[in-house]
Amino acid sequence: MADLLKSTVKITRSQETADALISLILSRNMKAGDRLPNEQTLCEALNIGRGTLREAVKQLSSRNILEVHQGSGTYVSDKRGIPSDPLGVTFLKNNKKLALDLIEARLALEPQIAMLAAENATEEDIAHMIELRDLHKEAIYSGGNYQDVDTQFHAYVAQCSGNAIFTNLVPIIASSVQVSTTIVDMEYRKISARCHHLITECIARHDGLGAYNAMLTHLNVSREYFISKED
Amino acid sequence: MADLLKSTVKITRSQETADALISLILSRNMKAGDRLPNEQTLCEALNIGRGTLREAVKQLSSRNILEVHQGSGTYVSDKRGIPSDPLGVTFLKNNKKLALDLIEARLALEPQIAMLAAENATEEDIAHMIELRDLHKEAIYSGGNYQDVDTQFHAYVAQCSGNAIFTNLVPIIASSVQVSTTIVDMEYRKISARCHHLITECIARHDGLGAYNAMLTHLNVSREYFISKED
Repeated sequence: MADLLKSTVKITRSQETADALISLILSRNMKAGDRLPNEQTLCEALNIGRGTLREAVKQLSSRNILEVHQGSGTYVSDKRGIPSDPLGVTFLKNNKKLALDLIEARLALEPQIAMLAAENATEEDIAHMIELRDLHKEAIYSGGNYQDVDTQFHAYVAQCSGNAIFTNLVPIIASSVQVSTTIVDMEYRKISARCHHLITECIARHDGLGAYNAMLTHLNVSREYFISKED
Repeated sequence: MADLLKSTVKITRSQETADALISLILSRNMKAGDRLPNEQTLCEALNIGRGTLREAVKQLSSRNILEVHQGSGTYVSDKRGIPSDPLGVTFLKNNKKLALDLIEARLALEPQIAMLAAENATEEDIAHMIELRDLHKEAIYSGGNYQDVDTQFHAYVAQCSGNAIFTNLVPIIASSVQVSTTIVDMEYRKISARCHHLITECIARHDGLGAYNAMLTHLNVSREYFISKED
């Protein structure tokens, strides 16, 4: 019984410490890659023991808020607190139905996102989007790995929407798609590159309806492709 | 150095053990609330020590896959591996902009979801949806807590869509909305009850376009309400 109580108290303290560390990161406006003060400084500042601090750091690492680099220190993670497998895909059977469900989710979200990006993208945003579009096209025509830059392109369009939820949601869904994607043929990849081209053009001329329709067409091509490959 | 190596090996082993436990849950088709075999049985079956097992269980608990009930055992969590704060909302400033961003995300997703629910809902699904609709209305007219059943209603519509990604995504977004929701007045709540009524009617008559438009109207009322309350 004494042991149980002790363990409960410890959990509460490490939880409080975790909350205090989050407040520290927010109040100091710390960014991804910034290093936390060292153990001794933190223990003294928060008036806690090393065990409690380490428990809190472990918890925040598993939440992708912090990253411990052995021998160097503890850093703010570039995953911005977005956990691995946020959609609980581990417990969905990873089959063609799931790939299609993911495309349907993207079909619901991304045309609207492209429309908002057309409304809100700055000249600088557009210049970077064109770079990503070109990298994607080059990767496809050279037969290289195009999936990472594909995800980056869609994530960047979401970032340009100015909506924080879309910005966090699209990389989550796009990376789940990668996991579930089967090998696609060259013709499909080239169509994909052309779609990215058209989406970028529409956003560049701040044409919301055009961007909406271009994104819808792009994802609907994926949907039809997956349905045609079924069975 | 020896210590560092030892710690790396231990992390790998507990990671392997965590993967083995996930395989166990999936292969035995274990459901939320099912109890895992006891420590001794698992350690013998997986040929590992108690320390490694406990580390793996801790990791899976923080991923909301398992739940440890002190003195009783380790159970499959009803959170189905969906982590807390999947959208990384901790690091978004929780202001009116965030509330509006959440409504925009729901406006992109939920009309399509309602349309799919109208296509796919069974008679049993519809009966349960009507129950949730009535509970929501009662809660509003009696001045009770209507938010939980509001979230349940939207989550259930998503479940009826038959899309696993929507099913997992809507509770995540809907619960984030609760966190960011300011107090809304009685007239708004009554409109909300009428919207739930119309959405349910459309789904019950398998009217996809009607369900799409009813959900869009419902969420657009929220969007206009938040904009009118701004500043």
